[in-house]
Amino acid sequence: MTIKLTDQQLDEFDREGWLYLPQVFDADEIAVLQAEAQRIFAMQRQEVFREKDGKTARTAFAAHTYNEAYRRLGRHPRLVGPVMQLLGGHVYMHQFKINAKAAFNGDVWQWHQDYGTWKRDDDMPEPRAMNIALFLEDVTEFNGALMFIPRSHKKGTLEAGHDLKTTSYPLWTIDEDTIRRLVAEGGIVAPKGPAGGIIMFHSNLVHGSPSNMSPFDRTIVYLSLCHVDNHIRRFQRADWIAHRDFTPIEPLADGCLKELAAAGTAAAE
Amino acid sequence: MTIKLTDQQLDEFDREGWLYLPQVFDADEIAVLQAEAQRIFAMQRQEVFREKDGKTARTAFAAHTYNEAYRRLGRHPRLVGPVMQLLGGHVYMHQFKINAKAAFNGDVWQWHQDYGTWKRDDDMPEPRAMNIALFLEDVTEFNGALMFIPRSHKKGTLEAGHDLKTTSYPLWTIDEDTIRRLVAEGGIVAPKGPAGGIIMFHSNLVHGSPSNMSPFDRTIVYLSLCHVDNHIRRFQRADWIAHRDFTPIEPLADGCLKELAAAGTAAAE
Repeated sequence: MTIKLTDQQLDEFDREGWLYLPQVFDADEIAVLQAEAQRIFAMQRQEVFREKDGKTARTAFAAHTYNEAYRRLGRHPRLVGPVMQLLGGHVYMHQFKINAKAAFNGDVWQWHQDYGTWKRDDDMPEPRAMNIALFLEDVTEFNGALMFIPRSHKKGTLEAGHDLKTTSYPLWTIDEDTIRRLVAEGGIVAPKGPAGGIIMFHSNLVHGSPSNMSPFDRTIVYLSLCHVDNHIRRFQRADWIAHRDFTPIEPLADGCLKELAAAGTAAAE
Repeated sequence: MTIKLTDQQLDEFDREGWLYLPQVFDADEIAVLQAEAQRIFAMQRQEVFREKDGKTARTAFAAHTYNEAYRRLGRHPRLVGPVMQLLGGHVYMHQFKINAKAAFNGDVWQWHQDYGTWKRDDDMPEPRAMNIALFLEDVTEFNGALMFIPRSHKKGTLEAGHDLKTTSYPLWTIDEDTIRRLVAEGGIVAPKGPAGGIIMFHSNLVHGSPSNMSPFDRTIVYLSLCHVDNHIRRFQRADWIAHRDFTPIEPLADGCLKELAAAGTAAAE
């Protein structure tokens, strides 16, 4: 399976700021990633942030540096390929995270732009970087689906305040009047679909996600990929949050995860 | 307009525990109620609870006792009528509230049964009481729609713990394992629709609602009506939360609110 975006998809991304592609990873691949995510969330290490309750995993950083399945996912051609196409060249991994949004206890991510943080905290020169995200469970209206404000990526980098209180993870968030204005123009969309689908979105697209009080987990893996020429200039955040290895990613073979799934099954038999 | 539930609707209510009827109140009627709700939320009085931020209105109790529009709504035949039909006789107002679920700041209501509270706190003998709720704004997937677990009302009064921490209003909430089990059987539904629609649901139906981080308010008025024979026996909560006037409600004329809307318009001209 090779993902090559069509001209129509490229136009849509440019206009709306996001694209959703269903059924990109299959059930075997997802099963490996799910199992490994649970193992990672159970680890006591600095890369795993907890919710305000101090227990529930909120987000795990840099799993591609300490877990084989995620190492492969971080170099997977179905994720790295379309981003290279959109950013027009070689990319490196600026950030890698597994966001849990756990059943019952997964908390909100307030409205924000990712590039706002990358600019302010990391001095990334331009928004030539973006997220591509993979659903590890079905995303529904009940488990905290990601919400986008379409076309908001055309507004440049918006004013933001550093939110240190609302949730357990600090974030540059956008004020209510701005959100009201952007939503009046662009509305809100929340792409939903089965595990295995992917979403890619512009680094200036305003987004957030509500809390999850359903009994269903909603784990999403985010690769934040940046054009190699556009690497960050300031190193104030931990290097497992804002990476400093600007080596171009060489995508692996399409079967790299499938192979691991097969090996796991074989080992378990 | 007279609302008389059909046999099919009565069956559905019995089986699923809830019913949604769109377009019960018109735009003029809703406009009056919306304007009055905002006036009430701005009042400094004990009946108006704030969210944890201490500012945003969360819920206003007993507005039918101090506001003319809500006095009429509390005796409106389109609300009182179908509940008398479902409960089989005269009813009194056990509780009356306007839940704000304000844009950006409206917080969750955790999973609970209303009768659980009425039983434990107020010693209401039987679940011969129920809610009928009116949407004052459009309810969408983004502004904190009420979620029901269909058929959960058949499980009786479930174990619950007194939650004094999660939100600013104390509530008897149901544990995660029970919710998981009920949802596995019945799923989750979140009826959505334009302002003016109504929802009625069994007092043992498990329900909750997520936070609202959209720029859209989601105000819902709840009448909790109880069969007069089934009035509460314990008076430990404030009488503006759990009422002690067990007089049967005599519904007003169907045009009672419309009339007020017309008078308001005339006065403003």
